[in-house]
Amino acid sequence: VAKRLEKFKTTIFTQMSMLAIKRGAVNLGQGFPNFDGPEFVKEAAIQAIKDGKNQYARGYGVPEFNSAIACRFKKDTGLDVDPEKEITITSGCTEAIAATMLGLINPGDEVLLFAPFYDSYEATLSMAGAKIKCITLRPPDFAVPIDELKSTITKNTRAILINTPHNPTGKMFTREELNVIASLCIENDVLVFTDEVYDKLAFEMDHISMASLPGMFERTVTMNSLGKTFSLTGWKIGWAIAPPHLTWGVRQAHSFLTFATSTPMQWAAVAALKAPDSYYEELKRDYSAKKAILVEGLNAVGFKVFPSSGTYFVVVDHTPFGLENDIAFCEYLIKEVGVVAIPTSVFCLNPEDGKNLVRFTFCKDEGTLRAAVERMKEKL
Amino acid sequence: VAKRLEKFKTTIFTQMSMLAIKRGAVNLGQGFPNFDGPEFVKEAAIQAIKDGKNQYARGYGVPEFNSAIACRFKKDTGLDVDPEKEITITSGCTEAIAATMLGLINPGDEVLLFAPFYDSYEATLSMAGAKIKCITLRPPDFAVPIDELKSTITKNTRAILINTPHNPTGKMFTREELNVIASLCIENDVLVFTDEVYDKLAFEMDHISMASLPGMFERTVTMNSLGKTFSLTGWKIGWAIAPPHLTWGVRQAHSFLTFATSTPMQWAAVAALKAPDSYYEELKRDYSAKKAILVEGLNAVGFKVFPSSGTYFVVVDHTPFGLENDIAFCEYLIKEVGVVAIPTSVFCLNPEDGKNLVRFTFCKDEGTLRAAVERMKEKL
Ligand SMILES: CSCCC(=O)C(=O)O
Ligand SMILES: CSCCC(=O)C(=O)O
Repeated sequence: VAKRLEKFKTTIFTQMSMLAIKRGAVNLGQGFPNFDGPEFVKEAAIQAIKDGKNQYARGYGVPEFNSAIACRFKKDTGLDVDPEKEITITSGCTEAIAATMLGLINPGDEVLLFAPFYDSYEATLSMAGAKIKCITLRPPDFAVPIDELKSTITKNTRAILINTPHNPTGKMFTREELNVIASLCIENDVLVFTDEVYDKLAFEMDHISMASLPGMFERTVTMNSLGKTFSLTGWKIGWAIAPPHLTWGVRQAHSFLTFATSTPMQWAAVAALKAPDSYYEELKRDYSAKKAILVEGLNAVGFKVFPSSGTYFVVVDHTPFGLENDIAFCEYLIKEVGVVAIPTSVFCLNPEDGKNLVRFTFCKDEGTLRAAVERMKEKL
Repeated sequence: VAKRLEKFKTTIFTQMSMLAIKRGAVNLGQGFPNFDGPEFVKEAAIQAIKDGKNQYARGYGVPEFNSAIACRFKKDTGLDVDPEKEITITSGCTEAIAATMLGLINPGDEVLLFAPFYDSYEATLSMAGAKIKCITLRPPDFAVPIDELKSTITKNTRAILINTPHNPTGKMFTREELNVIASLCIENDVLVFTDEVYDKLAFEMDHISMASLPGMFERTVTMNSLGKTFSLTGWKIGWAIAPPHLTWGVRQAHSFLTFATSTPMQWAAVAALKAPDSYYEELKRDYSAKKAILVEGLNAVGFKVFPSSGTYFVVVDHTPFGLENDIAFCEYLIKEVGVVAIPTSVFCLNPEDGKNLVRFTFCKDEGTLRAAVERMKEKL
């Protein structure tokens, strides 16, 4: 294995989902729904396949899909973007992240991450040869430590990575936090890469896109995907929105990472993005109900549950149960209780920062959520 | 844009296909069929979507698909591979190439390419920071210059990239050539990365997989895809087969480039790989007929046509028409004749090596092939 990837292990999601299957455990680990996506989107994919939309898409996206994303972004942020020059379709947000790092970051560039972070950020920054600086968001509210941020962003910083709503904590960056970050970025000429795949799962406050802040669009790559919002995580449709000079870098990397993304799935995505507002309202209503079941259950089991404003995750403090750290706790949970959760130390440069915290997802049907809670009530 | 991608332009395929659409030219450029893939494979994709196979696949592949590839590889090469430890499913062969380079090549490693080469090889090697050494295959037969090869492969060479059947020339590496390469690789401890996406389009001789040569499996990454063989280039299903120690590197890169590949398309691919031998025979029969139309037509137009043993491409010498180089010729061909071909200098480190050669594809219906020939007969 090349040195750039030496320190990484099999992703925690793969490890945990495979263990879940092997042990017949209830899987509240990897974030994929155990229910299906909407019929109208599936029907659109089927129609596209039948209609023979089965050859290479244009490298940076089926034109109609680029346009549909521009419309959605306008609606969400008020910004007009050029679908031809500012949008790149990728094979999931994971590829958008990789293409952004490999297309825009040079070896030695300093990039700032907030821990805990989604594992692919660190791995793709390592592929790009970046120097990672890390700021830890801490419970109970995972607020941005402003003073630490101010001393960490310098003229040497090339980019800062934001993920809001935030996986794994469910934290949403507040307008105040985004404003501080924005003004530091403008002052120090820093780019922002923002992963907003959970933007439609914002329960307690409105999602704010960094790109919508004054002066920020021109220095921001906004990344998103279809999978979480349409419960079709296996379709691997993502995108990156950025001004032309940044889009160029993203597209160049994308051209040689995958060249183009599945054509029929892009056509289905066009149909998905035509969903009426009621679709998103219902999605949120459904997830609020699931979240209530899980949060209430976790409290009843005896965890300290931290408030989650967005995503379909909640993070808890497992220390009441006396295991030495998050890894040991998750192992105990799988073996003795039959429930899978995700440790968070694997998302921190310094594992100490995550050792008390474990993540559960509520993107499962209510029966599964209740079964997991029952098992924990009984055996923890 | 990051330095690693600075020298690259919009891929020639994207440029040319966009020009074809804009100018209403007959597109014999980018290699995608203008007819549809087989019904039984499309039906399998539709069924998978209906059956709710729409969430994340296992990162390295849907188990049934990994197994189906192991079966096919056994049939093709006689080799037994472990579907769980030696096969990785990727988003097209393009991603397999990127994952192989980023997962196995360190900055400064010497990698040997044969020119003309598919453009993503150079770009992904640049992403990996490799030092590229290049050997040019020259008309009329594009034979491997053995002496040059012997003096180029040294103890400093980390890997050699082979593409057989070869895009753009249609050359197939002979057993003698593969034997020489294999013994040099063993002698100098060199890896082989082999792109075999056209293995089922071998017209004049049998395809030979480098991995099947004695002692070679353990040092070879064999890459392939569904798109060309099943006329579904837009589905973006590829794979890499390699011994466990090499698979580890490929998988680590893949995990963070795309994480997983479209789940319903992987299920469809399982069905595709159950195709009887007659499917492949018919595919070849169809393509032989198309090839005859194109080759005869190009000869009649006045090109010098070089023999192509495999792939759905033929390369011609355009110099009888007096344009200064391949780029100028292709521009003239689009503007004045209304036909799109692909220049080959863009696939050479030294553009001089490709300046007389232009590539045409015959993966189009017969009417399209005849229309292109007619236009050229009339206007060249
Ligand atoms: C790409 S696998 C991970 C899915 C996910 O986003 C999560 O569980 O955090
Ligand atoms: C990925 S686009 C290129 C298609 C192809 O293989 C070719 O035309 O050479």
